[in-house]
Amino acid sequence: MGLVQDSRGLRILDQTKIPHSEEWISVSSSTEMIGLIQRLAVRGAPLIGVAAALSIAQEAHLFSPVELRTRLRLLREARPTAVNLMWAVDRMLVALDRAGPAALPLEAEQIFTDDAKMCEAMAAMAYPLLPKNGSVMTICNTGGLATVGIGTALGAIRYAVEKGNSIHVYVLETRPLGQGARLTVWELANLGIPYTLVTDSMAAFLMCRKKIHGVFAGADRVARNGDVANKIGTYGLALLAKHHGIPFHIVAPSSTFDSECANGGAIPIEERSPEEVRFPFAGSEVQVWNPAFDVTPASLITALVSENGLRENGSAGF
Amino acid sequence: MGLVQDSRGLRILDQTKIPHSEEWISVSSSTEMIGLIQRLAVRGAPLIGVAAALSIAQEAHLFSPVELRTRLRLLREARPTAVNLMWAVDRMLVALDRAGPAALPLEAEQIFTDDAKMCEAMAAMAYPLLPKNGSVMTICNTGGLATVGIGTALGAIRYAVEKGNSIHVYVLETRPLGQGARLTVWELANLGIPYTLVTDSMAAFLMCRKKIHGVFAGADRVARNGDVANKIGTYGLALLAKHHGIPFHIVAPSSTFDSECANGGAIPIEERSPEEVRFPFAGSEVQVWNPAFDVTPASLITALVSENGLRENGSAGF
Repeated sequence: MGLVQDSRGLRILDQTKIPHSEEWISVSSSTEMIGLIQRLAVRGAPLIGVAAALSIAQEAHLFSPVELRTRLRLLREARPTAVNLMWAVDRMLVALDRAGPAALPLEAEQIFTDDAKMCEAMAAMAYPLLPKNGSVMTICNTGGLATVGIGTALGAIRYAVEKGNSIHVYVLETRPLGQGARLTVWELANLGIPYTLVTDSMAAFLMCRKKIHGVFAGADRVARNGDVANKIGTYGLALLAKHHGIPFHIVAPSSTFDSECANGGAIPIEERSPEEVRFPFAGSEVQVWNPAFDVTPASLITALVSENGLRENGSAGF
Repeated sequence: MGLVQDSRGLRILDQTKIPHSEEWISVSSSTEMIGLIQRLAVRGAPLIGVAAALSIAQEAHLFSPVELRTRLRLLREARPTAVNLMWAVDRMLVALDRAGPAALPLEAEQIFTDDAKMCEAMAAMAYPLLPKNGSVMTICNTGGLATVGIGTALGAIRYAVEKGNSIHVYVLETRPLGQGARLTVWELANLGIPYTLVTDSMAAFLMCRKKIHGVFAGADRVARNGDVANKIGTYGLALLAKHHGIPFHIVAPSSTFDSECANGGAIPIEERSPEEVRFPFAGSEVQVWNPAFDVTPASLITALVSENGLRENGSAGF
């Protein structure tokens, strides 16, 4: 888990430091939390929603409802793509309007509990999609670090392994920031689940030369028509999976579903600092494009799994 | 150019140091050259063939034909995938058998001259495939650094720009070793050709969101049926191009064509050190798969261009 709330207050595990060191940062204000979210010390669509809620809950007794509302709005805008942040902030806004600042800590606690429960429920729903004995691929980090539970896509893999399935995980490095190489590998090693790290450029050849039973990814936003925004590289991976006849699954909690977004074209895509792409090979003068997410059309997704069930491609409502 | 042969002898530009510094290494033996080829100080399928030939030419007066033959065999095995190395070594072996060690310097010089000429001729052949005004994508480095001429795929782009075409080049970083980010960007900046660097994981979204007129790649070996081994990531890129309706072209000299290789399945694929994939995100204990090349089936290649002409997909002999 990338976040702890206890008698010592709210602390987050600085994910930019994993796997080299495990540094916990105490967070005393929502303003600080915005900074931590923007520099990806706190990351993972579900986790940033929970973290945002808890950071405001801490301030509930310090500020007026007007000030709290302003702070919630600023938190809501910390990053544009993952809708879980907006979902959590909106729940806090509703609680504030309904019952005032005193209601915020309880609402944040409920958001925390809900996230952990949704992870467990999603994993159970995804279970039939996992191979008994086989290999899967995954991109970015969708495990315990990205949520306050067992994770989304990686949580489903973990759940199946704990049920006795024998699964090998091919981890895509996930450039530019290496969440696969840094975070997913770290989680899998800690869990004792066998894995192999590959660069993103190896995905197609891997699918061609090794037997892959499924690709499992998370999501940052699911549009009404089933299009999914997720970490840059996901769309290409879905196309490659389709070509090789490999099922491509998205595992994401209902907090990632945006009913106000008709389709993927309406999802804002965050573009981040060129420095992320320049590192480690290119100098500071090099021209770069750095979209942090892409959009996978619903047609490429074999099954979309949430805690409420499993929508298979071609089925009603997809 | 990544290699110079003059009164000071044979020197190679250490490509592992580009773009940070331009360090030239004097090479006095073929044994040294093997080391430089294996650690990629000398790289690029055409260039390693030329470099191998020149390194033996230097030793022609020092050793017996038997010893020279042994040294040529060791050079031939320095790297397994690019066939240009074998092509150059075999030319040297034929010259040695025909006219003895004294013939080697002239044969090496001819190999050098042929490579530069093939680059120019290929670029002219590829010219009709380049957009007048538009954007292209490329992977790895296929420019002046990879040959002793203007390059293969990147040479064709450069040729068209020098003819007056207005071309923007999207450069794929090319993990794990970053030849795109380090070498191709450096060449394009030196040539004043506008470019944008992206990670390999951005290729699909780039094709979806920007207008791309063609993908241009080089080759390490072309099989008789037109299958192409090239830098890892090329196969996936070809699949993504096909999905988006973007022409995918291979530009490679005849020295890259292996008539003894029936199809891509017969091309040996070099697997390199895990450290290449671990850098810069993962620790030394992380499990890795590191194929340095992949195979693109002929069916995904729109046109295969050599100095002898242009074979379009579906045409006779492809």
